[in-house]
Amino acid sequence: MRILITAGGTTEKIDDVRAITNHSSGRLGKAIAEAFLSEDATIDYITIKPAVKPDDSRISLHLIESTAGLAAKLKELMTANKYTAVIHSMAVSDFTPESSITLEDLQQTVSTNPVDLAAALKAKDQERTEKKISSDTDHLVIILKKNPKVIQQIKELQPETTLVGFKLLVDVPMIQLLDVAKKSLEKNQADFILANDLTEISGETHHGYLINRQHKVKEAHTKSEIAQLIKEAVLERKNA
Amino acid sequence: MRILITAGGTTEKIDDVRAITNHSSGRLGKAIAEAFLSEDATIDYITIKPAVKPDDSRISLHLIESTAGLAAKLKELMTANKYTAVIHSMAVSDFTPESSITLEDLQQTVSTNPVDLAAALKAKDQERTEKKISSDTDHLVIILKKNPKVIQQIKELQPETTLVGFKLLVDVPMIQLLDVAKKSLEKNQADFILANDLTEISGETHHGYLINRQHKVKEAHTKSEIAQLIKEAVLERKNA
Repeated sequence: MRILITAGGTTEKIDDVRAITNHSSGRLGKAIAEAFLSEDATIDYITIKPAVKPDDSRISLHLIESTAGLAAKLKELMTANKYTAVIHSMAVSDFTPESSITLEDLQQTVSTNPVDLAAALKAKDQERTEKKISSDTDHLVIILKKNPKVIQQIKELQPETTLVGFKLLVDVPMIQLLDVAKKSLEKNQADFILANDLTEISGETHHGYLINRQHKVKEAHTKSEIAQLIKEAVLERKNA
Repeated sequence: MRILITAGGTTEKIDDVRAITNHSSGRLGKAIAEAFLSEDATIDYITIKPAVKPDDSRISLHLIESTAGLAAKLKELMTANKYTAVIHSMAVSDFTPESSITLEDLQQTVSTNPVDLAAALKAKDQERTEKKISSDTDHLVIILKKNPKVIQQIKELQPETTLVGFKLLVDVPMIQLLDVAKKSLEKNQADFILANDLTEISGETHHGYLINRQHKVKEAHTKSEIAQLIKEAVLERKNA
């Protein structure tokens, strides 16, 4: 059995010294990897340098930084190997910086009523000659463009794999959390979504719902319980 | 002799899961702390959780995250203790996120010609009810406001301390680097500025110029050489 796990959070560069980061300790991914080790699985584990990592000779670590780097590494690994399951717990940046300009330049650019505002702002940014954005302005504006959804390439590459996706919201009612998770199942062709709320995560305490395509929901209260739920779901589907 | 060192880079929150980070490994700060230990100094060391840190019983670590956290900690320590020198090597974020909106909302807000655009964008952002920014938009815009200059409070708190500031630029001619460093000396009432260029930093290799108020320049090529230069400069001024 070969398992692919992604964990930690991506980093998107603004310039040579600044970046937008998605916070994720990586501890849940570590717990999931450890749960699968007891099943004698071979694990490819994609993560970032600062994350907490599992340490075992049966786990191959693959370090990436950005969402683009994650997409490339997923494609590489999923072209080379066949996976029983892909557990995509990494916090992926939905957006990546496209341009950075001052508020004055932004106002001036908008006032020219460009057909494509994003493109006009990018052109304005490129007029700047310094590589590092100057701090001589009261307000700075960063325009980000949407990243391709990395999770959607997983079933395209391996339709037979079991895909476990994650959905993290912040301080929402349970009904809304499960509703968003159901939509995510469809949109990403996932077999399971682990839905969780940031306000219910603290150290090992980690409240989560694992929902399947029949909308059956299982609940967990700690990182190791979530890891167990995911492992059992993957094994059940493998043996079905 | 009591020394205050700042190292690593600050993090500014965008929302509950995203942040803007300033990259700095913290290795130069560690080298500086180690250089001062051989002089039997007591060291307060302000840094961030992910940074490389020195490890010695004579070094007190103080962890912060944001620029505001750094400013508060500096004030606290500099009110409680008298420092022979403050070596401010931390990469501090010049800006902090003020509001985040879609490009469509931005365009619409600018078109109303508000007197204070930044305030109008902030108001627009606050109309949003979700705590996490939705990803259902092609472009996202983050407006950042300028942070107060933390370095400028150091001489206000302790006019007699020796202040060593840092200036990092990216891929500029030496003459421009030294010119910016000279301006930084004046603006921040620094006694020394260590001027360096990101393209000349790689692992232990670290090209830098230490410039004093008489505009005398000393050159170093590694992190430990920079640490030595700074230590000697501080001791010379202390014994003068």
